[in-house]
Amino acid sequence: MTTTTRHDEYPSRATSEPSITPRHDPVVCPPSEPLREVLSPSSLLDYQRDGYLVIEDVFTQSETEVLRSELADLRASRDVRSDPRTVLEPGDQTVRSIFEVQRLSELFAGVLADTRLVDCARQILGSPVYVHQSRVNFKPALRGKEFFWHSDFETWHVEDGMPRMRALSCSIALTDNTEFNGPLMVIPESHHWYVACVGETPERHYEQSLRRQEYGTPDAESLRWLVDRGGIQAPKLHAGSVVLFDCNMMHASGVNLSPYARSNLFVVYNAIDNALVAPYGVDEPRPTYIANRDPSPIG
Amino acid sequence: MTTTTRHDEYPSRATSEPSITPRHDPVVCPPSEPLREVLSPSSLLDYQRDGYLVIEDVFTQSETEVLRSELADLRASRDVRSDPRTVLEPGDQTVRSIFEVQRLSELFAGVLADTRLVDCARQILGSPVYVHQSRVNFKPALRGKEFFWHSDFETWHVEDGMPRMRALSCSIALTDNTEFNGPLMVIPESHHWYVACVGETPERHYEQSLRRQEYGTPDAESLRWLVDRGGIQAPKLHAGSVVLFDCNMMHASGVNLSPYARSNLFVVYNAIDNALVAPYGVDEPRPTYIANRDPSPIG
Repeated sequence: MTTTTRHDEYPSRATSEPSITPRHDPVVCPPSEPLREVLSPSSLLDYQRDGYLVIEDVFTQSETEVLRSELADLRASRDVRSDPRTVLEPGDQTVRSIFEVQRLSELFAGVLADTRLVDCARQILGSPVYVHQSRVNFKPALRGKEFFWHSDFETWHVEDGMPRMRALSCSIALTDNTEFNGPLMVIPESHHWYVACVGETPERHYEQSLRRQEYGTPDAESLRWLVDRGGIQAPKLHAGSVVLFDCNMMHASGVNLSPYARSNLFVVYNAIDNALVAPYGVDEPRPTYIANRDPSPIG
Repeated sequence: MTTTTRHDEYPSRATSEPSITPRHDPVVCPPSEPLREVLSPSSLLDYQRDGYLVIEDVFTQSETEVLRSELADLRASRDVRSDPRTVLEPGDQTVRSIFEVQRLSELFAGVLADTRLVDCARQILGSPVYVHQSRVNFKPALRGKEFFWHSDFETWHVEDGMPRMRALSCSIALTDNTEFNGPLMVIPESHHWYVACVGETPERHYEQSLRRQEYGTPDAESLRWLVDRGGIQAPKLHAGSVVLFDCNMMHASGVNLSPYARSNLFVVYNAIDNALVAPYGVDEPRPTYIANRDPSPIG
């Protein structure tokens, strides 16, 4: 038997020079089986072109209030604070994020399986889907930190072994997203391009990267190239609204200088035939609470 | 002879509890002598109510381009980089701010004395004015840091000895101010209130405070109280436009996550009869390049 090197459609962190190459995968996929059509053709076209789509008021104000209250309970729980799936603020002991939130809360588990979200994901990805990752994020008032530009897919491919761009993220606003509380920022049309980052990824990088980013960070010139073309947008949302965005969308978020905390529920749906394989850039895959390796369909 | 304790209209950093008290000084002052009227009555009313005023396209695009080029030359100069009036980025050797810029550049000196600015300041302050402080600020692309909420007057009173609220700041945009490049953020109507901060100011605090803020920082509850009433605004400006804002306006700026640098020229005009006295909160006043002690009128 001879050993063959596996082909990598999207190499990154392998060379000392960054590069921008066209995406190889469709953004909106033809369905593999009949699926409910919940998004209009024009919404699908917007998503295809821009890489993201805002759906307003998916959840009611009372539903959203219950979810906020559940988040407050989780953040206050001693068990949750000491759980490895919980990320604390650097230099601080407050809870920033809680991963795999469906295991800690039946309420959040219900949201991830809600047809209002799953049907959109299935229609865009043209396939049954499973939850690749979920988390709740909390950005505290006045001192919530920024998160630098990145493509999630780059990380999921290199560190988790996601083969192709067949996933999307769904951010459910639990509080209003305003200009001043560090909302999601996106570079429209950036999802059409793959920015390969420089350098090699250290093993167990995730233990630090969820707090501070160092690897898998796009270079300044590539970012400028993307923004020169697509600009920057930061959708303003009511609590209960949803942003769907492509797994390869370049996105970031600023500081929260408002005196009100911002929180959201974040879930990533992946096509079931795009399940994780061995990572493309590291030997040891990240824990399953960050990158689920069980592609059982949801919804 | 007996020693009397000087009365302080605006005590701060003297107690362990923050407080909010009404301002004692008028925002727009009746003129002490006949002055040119360049601002309309409705603009003056806006300034009185909100605490700030945007004047669009005060400088032409070609004037602004010359100023940007002058800033680039100053930032590149070895003499400027080693000058005590220059502030470098923390953990970095790039130039963030240059104080007393009129001493380094005839061009910038001309802008500070330009009647398009000075006449506005004189009309609002109802008096001849002098330059209390000037600087150019440069917020680098992708990594320009935030500046937390503060009232300039609080610092100028405690650390420099500015007696009353009879000054205003003038920020001249040398590049466009967008939602994403860390523009000036203001809390409208906050200038009507004086937020006394907690704690005592260490001597020679300015050597650190221009890089990192620790003292003279308003508390979270006071900020929330102000934002609940006035909200937050971040004027979007073309290069060449000007924001005038009251010395007691609560303001901040976010990170620059855009791939373009942001820069501005900043000048503070003070009424000549409001010249600096001994500081109200420290023994040693800050250097004159930060707080000018010569109230010779300009313009």
